[in-house]
Amino acid sequence: MIVIMRPGASPAEIENVEARVREAGLEPHVTYGPDCKVITVVGDERAVQVQNFGVLPGVDRVVSVQAKYKLASVEARAERSVIGTVPRSDSTMKAIAFGGEAIPVVAGPCTVEGREQVIEIAEAVRAAGAVALRGGAFKPRTSPYAFQGLEEEGLEYLAEARERTGLPVVTEVMTTESVPLVAKYADVLQIGARNMQNFNLLRALGAVNRPVLLKRGMSATVDELLHAAEYILMEGNPDVILCERGVRTFEDHSRNTLSLSAVPALKHRAHLPVVVDPSHGTGYAYMVGPMSRAAVAAGADGLIIEVHADPSKAFVDGAQTLDFKAFEKLMAELRAVAEAVGRSVAAQGE
Amino acid sequence: MIVIMRPGASPAEIENVEARVREAGLEPHVTYGPDCKVITVVGDERAVQVQNFGVLPGVDRVVSVQAKYKLASVEARAERSVIGTVPRSDSTMKAIAFGGEAIPVVAGPCTVEGREQVIEIAEAVRAAGAVALRGGAFKPRTSPYAFQGLEEEGLEYLAEARERTGLPVVTEVMTTESVPLVAKYADVLQIGARNMQNFNLLRALGAVNRPVLLKRGMSATVDELLHAAEYILMEGNPDVILCERGVRTFEDHSRNTLSLSAVPALKHRAHLPVVVDPSHGTGYAYMVGPMSRAAVAAGADGLIIEVHADPSKAFVDGAQTLDFKAFEKLMAELRAVAEAVGRSVAAQGE
Amino acid sequence: MIVIMRPGASPAEIENVEARVREAGLEPHVTYGPDCKVITVVGDERAVQVQNFGVLPGVDRVVSVQAKYKLASVEARAERSVIGTVPRSDSTMKAIAFGGEAIPVVAGPCTVEGREQVIEIAEAVRAAGAVALRGGAFKPRTSPYAFQGLEEEGLEYLAEARERTGLPVVTEVMTTESVPLVAKYADVLQIGARNMQNFNLLRALGAVNRPVLLKRGMSATVDELLHAAEYILMEGNPDVILCERGVRTFEDHSRNTLSLSAVPALKHRAHLPVVVDPSHGTGYAYMVGPMSRAAVAAGADGLIIEVHADPSKAFVDGAQTLDFKAFEKLMAELRAVAEAVGRSVAAQGE
Amino acid sequence: MIVIMRPGASPAEIENVEARVREAGLEPHVTYGPDCKVITVVGDERAVQVQNFGVLPGVDRVVSVQAKYKLASVEARAERSVIGTVPRSDSTMKAIAFGGEAIPVVAGPCTVEGREQVIEIAEAVRAAGAVALRGGAFKPRTSPYAFQGLEEEGLEYLAEARERTGLPVVTEVMTTESVPLVAKYADVLQIGARNMQNFNLLRALGAVNRPVLLKRGMSATVDELLHAAEYILMEGNPDVILCERGVRTFEDHSRNTLSLSAVPALKHRAHLPVVVDPSHGTGYAYMVGPMSRAAVAAGADGLIIEVHADPSKAFVDGAQTLDFKAFEKLMAELRAVAEAVGRSVAAQGE
Repeated sequence: MIVIMRPGASPAEIENVEARVREAGLEPHVTYGPDCKVITVVGDERAVQVQNFGVLPGVDRVVSVQAKYKLASVEARAERSVIGTVPRSDSTMKAIAFGGEAIPVVAGPCTVEGREQVIEIAEAVRAAGAVALRGGAFKPRTSPYAFQGLEEEGLEYLAEARERTGLPVVTEVMTTESVPLVAKYADVLQIGARNMQNFNLLRALGAVNRPVLLKRGMSATVDELLHAAEYILMEGNPDVILCERGVRTFEDHSRNTLSLSAVPALKHRAHLPVVVDPSHGTGYAYMVGPMSRAAVAAGADGLIIEVHADPSKAFVDGAQTLDFKAFEKLMAELRAVAEAVGRSVAAQGE
Repeated sequence: MIVIMRPGASPAEIENVEARVREAGLEPHVTYGPDCKVITVVGDERAVQVQNFGVLPGVDRVVSVQAKYKLASVEARAERSVIGTVPRSDSTMKAIAFGGEAIPVVAGPCTVEGREQVIEIAEAVRAAGAVALRGGAFKPRTSPYAFQGLEEEGLEYLAEARERTGLPVVTEVMTTESVPLVAKYADVLQIGARNMQNFNLLRALGAVNRPVLLKRGMSATVDELLHAAEYILMEGNPDVILCERGVRTFEDHSRNTLSLSAVPALKHRAHLPVVVDPSHGTGYAYMVGPMSRAAVAAGADGLIIEVHADPSKAFVDGAQTLDFKAFEKLMAELRAVAEAVGRSVAAQGE
Repeated sequence: MIVIMRPGASPAEIENVEARVREAGLEPHVTYGPDCKVITVVGDERAVQVQNFGVLPGVDRVVSVQAKYKLASVEARAERSVIGTVPRSDSTMKAIAFGGEAIPVVAGPCTVEGREQVIEIAEAVRAAGAVALRGGAFKPRTSPYAFQGLEEEGLEYLAEARERTGLPVVTEVMTTESVPLVAKYADVLQIGARNMQNFNLLRALGAVNRPVLLKRGMSATVDELLHAAEYILMEGNPDVILCERGVRTFEDHSRNTLSLSAVPALKHRAHLPVVVDPSHGTGYAYMVGPMSRAAVAAGADGLIIEVHADPSKAFVDGAQTLDFKAFEKLMAELRAVAEAVGRSVAAQGE
Repeated sequence: MIVIMRPGASPAEIENVEARVREAGLEPHVTYGPDCKVITVVGDERAVQVQNFGVLPGVDRVVSVQAKYKLASVEARAERSVIGTVPRSDSTMKAIAFGGEAIPVVAGPCTVEGREQVIEIAEAVRAAGAVALRGGAFKPRTSPYAFQGLEEEGLEYLAEARERTGLPVVTEVMTTESVPLVAKYADVLQIGARNMQNFNLLRALGAVNRPVLLKRGMSATVDELLHAAEYILMEGNPDVILCERGVRTFEDHSRNTLSLSAVPALKHRAHLPVVVDPSHGTGYAYMVGPMSRAAVAAGADGLIIEVHADPSKAFVDGAQTLDFKAFEKLMAELRAVAEAVGRSVAAQGE
């Protein structure tokens, strides 16, 4: 912690800050400059309310030195994490892993609309090269009058599609109560952007034996995303996959602003894999191709893309959804870009 | 719904949109201008995926006409809502109401730290003129290593402070599981900014016989706040108090950007009372006074302010917390401003 | 300047930073903590490229300690600045001042549309209590096809309105070339939000014997606004009035997000007066009243408000413009709020 | 233009809007729905103040249908623009073009610091494969105390570097007065983000026989960028190159948020080439590589990258600057990514 005093701070004000620092069990070091006085504080600042020092007389502002996450940080682990699905003994499911050389593409509808729909889409995306199936059974919707998902029935259809295609299932869990239910059907449990700081849900997923795909909140910084991951990690689940899905800004040409620099920024700070959701990140189908290619070029460890047989008839988010033909074309482009950056697009059963 | 075609859209593309509109059970009206073709659609657009029409060939963009909330809207109710606490038969609690001529000020610590602390603060804020006590027993914290609250013990201290002072208790509920517990102790249940779109929690509060103070999410629009309120209203609880507490922007002089224009904007759209939280809205104690006065001048129906005996020692958020003297001074200022805008600051027991 | 090293930084990396600091003529002080190493640097950091140290091996980040403005800061001047118009020997103009106890209200059309229009409005706003006339003769417009102002003809009409009403003229100057022309007619020269960092224009106004009303840029921080003011101050013009007019955020209920906390934040840092523009700050007439009252309650030293005889027919920005009746009502409200906060609304000729 | 009435709007209010529309020379078409009344207006809305209709009684809001730019739009030109440098008869300069299959990389220092510096860098970036030289002689700086550039002396060094290497010069022009001077030395005139809406400067560049590289403002939408381009185009200069350089958001992991979706969004709307500045767009050297690759993958028609012999000693922006080795490595990566998306990195003299 560093306490920066106002230029005109008095010796008594500096002494008061020093006394308060010592009271908190930490050690102050004062440095005097021509225009400034700075108190550098040694010791574990996680134990104190750093910002409180800002209200003491004569203080200009306080700067935190330590990140508040530990387990997620690159310092905590010598190598980057590679996070794989958990085998299912009675299933045809083909394993995938995030964070290695090969980049898995997860695809499927925004929401499960029915049995045939999800099976048709699963087969089409597998044919095009996807290695996992996405699809929402519980849907967080801004309006209470909007379609809220098929719930357990939707999970059953996803599981059936998995048995037909071998694709592991990635699906969202919205409440702590439904964690056991969703964990029974899902291979990767997704936490949506609106729940990134639903701390009880994060803790509940810390106790689950499945990878968690944690989406960045609409206005969360990358550090806040890592703090959220820390909640899961510290409860004992080391398998957290981070996901950039766009943030909210003034821009109106896209639904969200997909901030691809979050990919190198997260990999600079943490050992966890980073995937990108270009569908929610842009909101328009015509941008999904360019931004998927860009994500792979920027170092993403996976993609999660919305695909539907007829996007104009999708129950949810049709405007940002690719049809089968567009998805197939995109997969070919992604293989070329992945190769150009020394990686590959993951293929099923490898 | 209005579908705006690209300038070069063909007659076949327009016909296709018309056909799709009819398929959805709605009626299209095409208007041709020199540079534009617009399809105005009559019928209840809540039944369709408005944005899906955006993927049809030749479409430039789609504009939604109807708000998706009904119960919250000014059209739904002839008069503005006045929302009062529910009487407690075995309590000395003095009722308060939001939305009337008198403006209640809720004050107290960010978090309950102990029995003596909360009682001391409750007595001080009541003496200064507050009519309700705030204090967190369950705390949503960015970092898992930060203090998370005293939980039920904290609720008991709040209840004891209520009996000592007559001040109703406003406190946050973070999970659906804890709704019955919190509802037992609290007079107003607060939903924090991070939970504004925790839809299951919203629904659970729709079944509670207590007012809900719903804080606007960090990057939620005012329309999204009203949609969140609608979740509570449609489950049968009409007593929703909206709260502006600042949004996240590029600004770095304050913790959040307190957007006071949300006060007139919300009152323009909805009949529900609007309160302001200048403590979280600014993050710095020196701004709390000016922004509290401004909130009252802008038409706020209540204030919720953080107060502590010694802010520099608060467990949480000391930097934005007033001490007793500053709060007392502020209350006098608020009475003058309220009077200037034809209202009053609510006094206990009136 | 404070250089925060990565937790795993090596002794050699620390020594390298120390050497570079000394090379720059500054003195490093290293503090070692359990998890962190921090290098506090004494000396005038304005002489170095602070952020460059961030590229040295082992550095996590660099924190600037000193503000880069001096003349604008509260440390530079014992008292708050009161900035008045410059007398005109051959004019009926009545002087006004910003920053004192009395709060001037500047009102008038967004743009000068014609001789009669501006005179009619000037008389109406003076009758309602405004003490200065605003109106654009040169208009910055997003689209090249939009009305760009009457230019010198517009300035002449403003001057004529001044002689009729005694109201000093506040009008925008957009280019260095037109500074002499505008300075001839105007009593306060306004720099628009888009020109806040037009540094040559700022410098040109530093040489003018007229107060400058400097609007905050759409995405400028308060510190950047003060740096812009510093450009004017250091060229010799001490009369800079700062103006909050809303910033660009994700919010869609208003044209900009009027950030009233900028008022206390600017007054905390600088001795210059701060005025508020609630018209551009909101974009909607129905919010102008509440936000004007709020601005005064928050400590604003002036208001600048758009008024037109028939806003629906205004050439520019009608949606945010008050008609005469609404403005008259607002002035009465402002007098009450000003009194409530121990000030007054300035009256002509006092 | 579409006028959306409030649900409770009266017949008289609707008639009043219709009358006003006719008064403006346009034709209203009213559509009545169960919950809504909408007035679709046919005719050239560029002639009216669309937002003014928002103040009429009973109006909820007004939606603009037409974009206000014409010359920049994809409808205005059958093919995408390819914009090349203007030959210099007495120079060794090798031509380049933006918007074709080959992608030019522009590289060089943030600012010209001296003769040797710029020549050394020019030779190094040419050796690595850059085909144009960037470097600022006039620098817009937030603080008046910061280095402001070598001015004409800097331009001379850039011209000398051009003769040594054949690299055309891209450099910023900040004022209308200096347009002739900069145009004499520069091959592409850059307008910085802070000047994107300096409309007089835009107009002045409309009369210059050189391509203009127009950077997007820090909080400008893509439509506003296209309006700014329109100012140049309508004055007769068809050679405008658009540049995405990051926008200002709440994110703190990067200096700006590089919004790569602006690349497909701009190409969707306009026929002009789009280049990306990953140096200002991120602010940190370690992100420049990933984001440069991503930009090419997203469809960028060029890159402009800051390179310095020793970034830690750069006068300006060292933190975001690559050294020679990092730039050389990046160029090899970019060739691979360009090939993967069916393009190439432009080579000198082709």
